[in-house]
Amino acid sequence: MDIIRPTLLLDKDVCLQNIATMAQKAKDKGLIFRPHFKTHQSAVIGDWFRAYGVTAITVSSVSMAQYFAQNGWDDITIAFPVNILEIEAINALAKDVKLNLLIENLESVQMLTKKITQNVGVFIEIDTGHNRTGIASNKYYGINAMLKVLHANERFDFKGFLSHTGHTYQAQSKQDIYNRHFDALLKMKALKNYYNKDFPNLILSLGDTPSACLCENFNGIDEIRPGNFVFFDLMQYKLGACDFEDIALRLVCPVISRHGSRSEVIIYGGAAHISKDSIINLDGKSLYGQVVVNKNGHKILLDERNYLYKLSQEHGVIRTTIQGFHNFEVGDLVEIIPAHSCLTANLMGEYLTTDGEWIPMMSKDFHRSSAQKPRNA
Amino acid sequence: MDIIRPTLLLDKDVCLQNIATMAQKAKDKGLIFRPHFKTHQSAVIGDWFRAYGVTAITVSSVSMAQYFAQNGWDDITIAFPVNILEIEAINALAKDVKLNLLIENLESVQMLTKKITQNVGVFIEIDTGHNRTGIASNKYYGINAMLKVLHANERFDFKGFLSHTGHTYQAQSKQDIYNRHFDALLKMKALKNYYNKDFPNLILSLGDTPSACLCENFNGIDEIRPGNFVFFDLMQYKLGACDFEDIALRLVCPVISRHGSRSEVIIYGGAAHISKDSIINLDGKSLYGQVVVNKNGHKILLDERNYLYKLSQEHGVIRTTIQGFHNFEVGDLVEIIPAHSCLTANLMGEYLTTDGEWIPMMSKDFHRSSAQKPRNA
Repeated sequence: MDIIRPTLLLDKDVCLQNIATMAQKAKDKGLIFRPHFKTHQSAVIGDWFRAYGVTAITVSSVSMAQYFAQNGWDDITIAFPVNILEIEAINALAKDVKLNLLIENLESVQMLTKKITQNVGVFIEIDTGHNRTGIASNKYYGINAMLKVLHANERFDFKGFLSHTGHTYQAQSKQDIYNRHFDALLKMKALKNYYNKDFPNLILSLGDTPSACLCENFNGIDEIRPGNFVFFDLMQYKLGACDFEDIALRLVCPVISRHGSRSEVIIYGGAAHISKDSIINLDGKSLYGQVVVNKNGHKILLDERNYLYKLSQEHGVIRTTIQGFHNFEVGDLVEIIPAHSCLTANLMGEYLTTDGEWIPMMSKDFHRSSAQKPRNA
Repeated sequence: MDIIRPTLLLDKDVCLQNIATMAQKAKDKGLIFRPHFKTHQSAVIGDWFRAYGVTAITVSSVSMAQYFAQNGWDDITIAFPVNILEIEAINALAKDVKLNLLIENLESVQMLTKKITQNVGVFIEIDTGHNRTGIASNKYYGINAMLKVLHANERFDFKGFLSHTGHTYQAQSKQDIYNRHFDALLKMKALKNYYNKDFPNLILSLGDTPSACLCENFNGIDEIRPGNFVFFDLMQYKLGACDFEDIALRLVCPVISRHGSRSEVIIYGGAAHISKDSIINLDGKSLYGQVVVNKNGHKILLDERNYLYKLSQEHGVIRTTIQGFHNFEVGDLVEIIPAHSCLTANLMGEYLTTDGEWIPMMSKDFHRSSAQKPRNA
């Protein structure tokens, strides 16, 4: 198969190995493995998880829950604070599958309890330091207020506490990741101890890929929900969460133009393909991707002095060293290893595996067709 | 119609007014108006241009050319340096429509001349200072080399010189935009004078929205190709290219959560919806969007101390002032005015007009279905 346009290449073997490794780790630690499917957003890739015993999944939107429910998944946690405006879709979904919702503020639970018509599981989201969503673990007053509303409605099955330790992404070292994870773990365990008498079966669920990969201490935790590990990316590599060889995604792009006077190479592949998410390079500038060239039939990973450093909608600009520049010819294909694979995958909308198979993702059309309130739900 | 999820709202009246204004300006200046359709990527919105006499368009990829050709446009310039790997799609397209290609280096023209099977128009791209693609206007040796190859193949019809004065986007003032535009204009006119004898009908084509909106001197220029003006956005407003009321797009998002202790409001609407493109706010931080709230039935634009300042895949974080915070309630809908409308539209994939009409865009599926070399072209 000849690639002629920006194409997202997926190394299936690497991807399967990543899934196998994480599934095995969860098994070894006695953890429920409920992978987050927001990274790949693909029913086909989702099915690859079944061989590793996965039966329960995490998603980040009601649309995504609908998509995976239609593709055979029947135990789904929506790990995004409940959006009460989607209540009809939530009720419709909960009719068909075991659905877990996330709450983190009293207003939502109060609105939810008035409108829920089906049985749902409910997690309370704990903010263990990421400071995005969730209630702080020591705000017992607020947690109790939510539990009281849950308790008063038999539709609700309180499942436990869930946290996304997303501040591991800002860590400066592996030790930093261990510390943040351990701090989160202690906060969660304190909750379990506190509520254990009333809820002996409550689940503690933790989420991020860096700590799921790097940490060994999951003492007291019941469930993990990593997502990015399925592909990994430069950010995970920088954090030490994976080896370079574990990165399963590459955006293949045609070389369009070379400008020797400023050591720049222009590729067809821009913000509309790779996304404007970046990491910081050695020179303090934004790095959108590293570059692999094909030289005499051999793939060569160029060092970080040759990197994707500027994006327009369709153009990507690779800054090179003087030597690095000679690796590029107009009409070549180069491979870009993305800074953040989730957003690149979300933009590309499909994968081409190294075996030549096209793998679709949840399409924007899916989102669209359900973007209005169902008329007769 | 009830909005329940991130939805891209288009004010059709504002959009039509933007089109009318630009079409009138082109007419007044005696310029060919060949609008760039990469911003809206929609056949429906494309059709709105016809009422203003538009018959020729600009796109930024072969896929986009295929999409608009299938939707009735038959005079298309692909304003992106020719990607030789797409030659079969280019030949197929050129059979059906008047197609103009862009070249800027000798290697591409040499490959192109061996593989072109249809008549095509060709522009040479001039770098007037944007330093992305194009050959410098004083590199006569390089321009002549390309012209020589064009001249030797009767399939090629040399149309003229095209430039995207994209460095107007980095301007610090209106005067800066005038200067950059005037400098580009002089460079282009010098080329026209130089090549006038051999090519008396050559066209000078300029492109960007800031100069097309702000500048009055188009002396010697034949064609303009602005695109973003159809919607505008915060970046254009900051540059002075439009009034605030001219911005036609807003991303409507549900409010999910409020965190008073840090004056933050969380919306459903993240990098997967609005894109990570940003402008710099008063405080030197990235601003992804400004915020309009609905207060007692009135829409209120909050000032820049209340702004979208952090994005995850699905979450947006609005930082507020202490007063501003009280404008938000969980379950509300807020409107985000995007920093860069092109990338937001590209992500959302469809529009809802203020009249309640859903307008589709070129889908990723379109890209996909033609992402392989046609087998029998």
